[in-house]
Amino acid sequence: MFISFEGTEGVGKTTLIRKLHDYYIEQGKEVVLTREPGGTPLAEQIRSLLLSVNHDEKMNSDTELLLMYAARAQHLQQVIMPALNAGKIVLCDRFVDSSYAYQCAGRGLSKQKLKLLNEHFVEKMPDVTFWLDAPIELGMNRARERGALDRFEQEKVSFFEKVRSGFAEIYRIEPDRMRRLDATQTPEKVFEDALGCLK
Amino acid sequence: MFISFEGTEGVGKTTLIRKLHDYYIEQGKEVVLTREPGGTPLAEQIRSLLLSVNHDEKMNSDTELLLMYAARAQHLQQVIMPALNAGKIVLCDRFVDSSYAYQCAGRGLSKQKLKLLNEHFVEKMPDVTFWLDAPIELGMNRARERGALDRFEQEKVSFFEKVRSGFAEIYRIEPDRMRRLDATQTPEKVFEDALGCLK
Repeated sequence: MFISFEGTEGVGKTTLIRKLHDYYIEQGKEVVLTREPGGTPLAEQIRSLLLSVNHDEKMNSDTELLLMYAARAQHLQQVIMPALNAGKIVLCDRFVDSSYAYQCAGRGLSKQKLKLLNEHFVEKMPDVTFWLDAPIELGMNRARERGALDRFEQEKVSFFEKVRSGFAEIYRIEPDRMRRLDATQTPEKVFEDALGCLK
Repeated sequence: MFISFEGTEGVGKTTLIRKLHDYYIEQGKEVVLTREPGGTPLAEQIRSLLLSVNHDEKMNSDTELLLMYAARAQHLQQVIMPALNAGKIVLCDRFVDSSYAYQCAGRGLSKQKLKLLNEHFVEKMPDVTFWLDAPIELGMNRARERGALDRFEQEKVSFFEKVRSGFAEIYRIEPDRMRRLDATQTPEKVFEDALGCLK
């Protein structure tokens, strides 16, 4: 079982992942918690390149996309596939849908490039994806409370509106895989809704 | 004018690039010297991920390929295209042909993946590519004399034989762009042959 968690900043992904992790552990299941970009030492190094703020050199959108997929290829082959093959549950904070929402819907990168990378470099899609959806301002306030903002978090509200609409688009196209959770609710209610989708 | 330089380790690419650089400078031309992977601060950071030796985590071949193209996208848009657009001569130590020779011919990665990355993420091919060709043992001895070997240089001779055959294959397919130089000759004669190709 491969479950990914998507949404804009501060919508409560981490809280939901922890609750589901504890739930599965109580049921005696083996669970692997992981995240993108990252998930292996090398992929985390790529993550730090992606998130670091550099005022001297603008990262172009192709570079960003290719770095994301480099980290993803490593993560899939080193962590996700071995865990799934061993019968474990994988809970992954962000996966391919973030690439679509941030790079294509957010930055206007061609959908064709992303589609092609997915087809040739992603051997396994999540069985279920939870999209935690909330108005942008709500999440931004939560993210700001957490402290210094990374390169993605420094984007403007209008950017995140486009990202949100990107998630909405995937939800329209793949309602069987992507489940929308109302993230304005309490963490307990969000968790309850998620469990409802998994049963 | 965009010129790239290819070949296995220790065949004398750096020496030839320096000689051509000095030649063009004497002619009053503006020349940009650059290299792959690398060429910008961010791309050099990606380069250091690619070349570093890590015994705890094997870099898989898809990851390697995508990191190469991430660095290349940044290099093209930040350095190569602006220089060419300003009428400068660009001399680049390795470019797309190294990806073909090392990743596809060397490591057996699918040619289709590379073709697709070239089509979608490489906006400009070199006008001329010099392939410095010499028997593998000759170059390996020179590379060893330079000191500690990086992740690529630590490969076995059989790997480099495959890489060399990869360059030979491109040479057969694109003889107009790729020019073979006999790198067993003196540096002066190699330079002379290169100049002959450029006139």
